[in-house]
Amino acid sequence: MRYSMEAGGKRIRPVLVIAASELVGAKLDPVPAAIAIECLHTYTLIHDDLPSIDNSPLRRGRPSCHTQFDEATAVLAGDALLTHAFQLLAESYADTPKIATNLVITLAKASSSRELIGGQMEDIENEGKTIDTDTLQYIHDNKTGALLTAALSMGLQLGQASEEQLSDIQNFGYNLGRSFQIVDDILDATSDAATLGKPVGKDDALEKLTYVSTHGLEGAREKAKQHTAQAIKHLESFGESAEFIRNLAHSLGSRAY
Amino acid sequence: MRYSMEAGGKRIRPVLVIAASELVGAKLDPVPAAIAIECLHTYTLIHDDLPSIDNSPLRRGRPSCHTQFDEATAVLAGDALLTHAFQLLAESYADTPKIATNLVITLAKASSSRELIGGQMEDIENEGKTIDTDTLQYIHDNKTGALLTAALSMGLQLGQASEEQLSDIQNFGYNLGRSFQIVDDILDATSDAATLGKPVGKDDALEKLTYVSTHGLEGAREKAKQHTAQAIKHLESFGESAEFIRNLAHSLGSRAY
Repeated sequence: MRYSMEAGGKRIRPVLVIAASELVGAKLDPVPAAIAIECLHTYTLIHDDLPSIDNSPLRRGRPSCHTQFDEATAVLAGDALLTHAFQLLAESYADTPKIATNLVITLAKASSSRELIGGQMEDIENEGKTIDTDTLQYIHDNKTGALLTAALSMGLQLGQASEEQLSDIQNFGYNLGRSFQIVDDILDATSDAATLGKPVGKDDALEKLTYVSTHGLEGAREKAKQHTAQAIKHLESFGESAEFIRNLAHSLGSRAY
Repeated sequence: MRYSMEAGGKRIRPVLVIAASELVGAKLDPVPAAIAIECLHTYTLIHDDLPSIDNSPLRRGRPSCHTQFDEATAVLAGDALLTHAFQLLAESYADTPKIATNLVITLAKASSSRELIGGQMEDIENEGKTIDTDTLQYIHDNKTGALLTAALSMGLQLGQASEEQLSDIQNFGYNLGRSFQIVDDILDATSDAATLGKPVGKDDALEKLTYVSTHGLEGAREKAKQHTAQAIKHLESFGESAEFIRNLAHSLGSRAY
């Protein structure tokens, strides 16, 4: 658990929790929620890397969990991080139980069989098959978008957010997720393992449908730009307080162009 | 998820949730909590059966999840059931958020790396090694006892339970867990696959330390009886209302003698 949590990575989901909590001037400490979602994310990486799923030996520049230890340990470390995410939320926000309960619901729904795991299952089932762009979209919106949006919602839930703000942040998250995934596809096709800290060219080797294979490199870059611009448009209602998160969206998008 | 949930089994944990809620005359519906803990238990069975862990092809009289589908599906089905357990608790008891939060804490702690998963990891690491009875006890108390005790605590939390009642039920659960595991060891050594719905003699084949290997068959039966008697003693404060749960403890114990 510690090995995989300490491997680093971009820490985007925890940053989004904290940034969103600042958007609404939340008084509650966002750090436990930020750690919880990183535990959740790290569990998905550990299990995705397993030999029976993506069979990936490298993660965040180090041997993946099952390579460093063994498969049984990786399965259990993932299980324990997933469990710990919910324990952390419930224990850390126990003094505000309505917020604690809502945080658990938001995180559990986003990572459920209908969202995150649903996207992952669809991805596995379609490996090597010809799929349409709707299916590709479904996979990405759920595998990646759901948890990014949950991070933002969780941050807002720590303060007093209006319905409009919750809706705006969800639209921001949705577009950020799309852009994020397209950038990932572009980097898998154009970068190298040393820069990314994980194997590249795997999508191509697995004959996976990606934004690059469907739209070409330039088309994918254009789409990433569009989604970043759309995302940022939904931050307007937050005014000046959204400066950090606006810059974050820009810098995540610009990794690909 | 559905395949493994519908495979049957004894449903002991959900029964304990409901029985414990009746001990304190809880007004809240115990069924969602009962289902949540069965989701949690079923996820542990699916992951335990994986080739990298116990490599068990049979469960509850049917092919285990990874045998029926494939390994990736079994990993994800387990993950999704674990996640669903917490979603179910938080959503179903959202109107009483303090109770919802406490239920999440109780279930998450019992199934965490310090309890359930800790016991499972210790079990895996000691396979084929000579271990002392303290380690054996630790494994069983955590792999089995923690979740049985959590089921009882969750039931009580749905009503107004005194500190003394919570402590009594934990002592009951602890002894029930011990008895339960000893009976399991005895049945693994003496029963057949058709009766149990899972492979037998596996402990022996894996050279696992069990209560039968350390205490002999008669010694193990004696120990199971002692723990059942101890468990039942802790129900005294509940008086007549504990009749069902008392009979349940008797009948679980008597499977071995």
